[in-house]
Amino acid sequence: MADMNTPPDSLAHLRALTRQFAQDRDWAPFHTPKNLAMALSVEVAELIEHFQWLPTGVDAELDDAARLGIRHELADVLLYLVQLADQAGVDLHAAALEKIALNAVKYPPPPGAVYP
Amino acid sequence: MADMNTPPDSLAHLRALTRQFAQDRDWAPFHTPKNLAMALSVEVAELIEHFQWLPTGVDAELDDAARLGIRHELADVLLYLVQLADQAGVDLHAAALEKIALNAVKYPPPPGAVYP
Amino acid sequence: MADMNTPPDSLAHLRALTRQFAQDRDWAPFHTPKNLAMALSVEVAELIEHFQWLPTGVDAELDDAARLGIRHELADVLLYLVQLADQAGVDLHAAALEKIALNAVKYPPPPGAVYP
Amino acid sequence: MADMNTPPDSLAHLRALTRQFAQDRDWAPFHTPKNLAMALSVEVAELIEHFQWLPTGVDAELDDAARLGIRHELADVLLYLVQLADQAGVDLHAAALEKIALNAVKYPPPPGAVYP
Repeated sequence: MADMNTPPDSLAHLRALTRQFAQDRDWAPFHTPKNLAMALSVEVAELIEHFQWLPTGVDAELDDAARLGIRHELADVLLYLVQLADQAGVDLHAAALEKIALNAVKYPPPPGAVYP
Repeated sequence: MADMNTPPDSLAHLRALTRQFAQDRDWAPFHTPKNLAMALSVEVAELIEHFQWLPTGVDAELDDAARLGIRHELADVLLYLVQLADQAGVDLHAAALEKIALNAVKYPPPPGAVYP
Repeated sequence: MADMNTPPDSLAHLRALTRQFAQDRDWAPFHTPKNLAMALSVEVAELIEHFQWLPTGVDAELDDAARLGIRHELADVLLYLVQLADQAGVDLHAAALEKIALNAVKYPPPPGAVYP
Repeated sequence: MADMNTPPDSLAHLRALTRQFAQDRDWAPFHTPKNLAMALSVEVAELIEHFQWLPTGVDAELDDAARLGIRHELADVLLYLVQLADQAGVDLHAAALEKIALNAVKYPPPPGAVYP
């Protein structure tokens, strides 16, 4: 069972769910970091496919089928990302906070900005 | 400032941070769904680059530079994913839970499995 | 009509065919370099999908459906690549020869090698 | 040496050059179809990177550095594509012609079109 002590919106919660899902299906031999990275790239392409011929991809350019497809593909990307980070031993949320801090140095905010 | 009422590990927290970051730099005109989807795919490729010539990508095949690079690229993928979902009006965590439920129907667990 | 003075195996021949194909369907407004680059990446992902869970992707690991799919996806990648190069004003074959020469400097052959 | 009986603009010519290049460097163990497909996707992303924040990627939006980068990345994509097709035993040009014929059925030309 997934650990229910994690916050309902947390990445650790999704990690627990995906671990259990893969374990129940004996997918460990397939879930090498290399394979998961490939699977991740395939899901990103399925996401891109919805946007490739559109001007910008804003909501007004989409129909309901595209909206649902985008929702599902965003989820697929996240689920493979969580699994790849898990196999790589990376705490995704901590890594994201680190990267935001690095980006803030690389792209300094203009004067008057409130972040961070 | 990001909303500090969200759980510390949550996707909503990262969404708040990335919104502020982009707003402070006036990046909204560039952050169309289409452009963010392309940026996402570029970051995924930078992640894949670490694995392409390795047998499986497990930790023993990596050196410290690769480990750090993978950590940073995983973060970059997550940050663009969060921003794309935000622009698309998708709650990433809710969408992921929906997709796990759909996947459980598509790939039924073998008898005796405890999930979901 | 495609120019029949080009060699039968040439990239210029494919360029002529793809130009005519797009022109007959009024696809020019969609075939911006940016859109073609996205379409190219989608086709590459459809190719990758055939290999993602396989050990190495050598012929013995494939069935006939995979072999046919790989053949078609390789073709799709080439056709979008030819069209993108055409829009970008790049002679693909000349660019490839230049890149091979640059690669030969970057990765010098070991002593005794006959190339280039 | 590459076979000089192939037409100067041909894909078979590039295949001969890339075979020799890889052979001289003993890269065969790395050049599995799976690895080449990953390398191909990385090169496509490096191409996409030039277009991701531009409106359409037409020449007027580019500077000389971008033009050169695009030329080199187009070449890299082609070279990996040629190598992957070679490992997969696929004649790229023949496969492209087949796919054009299939596409002509899938997307019939409007009345009056001269193709194919």
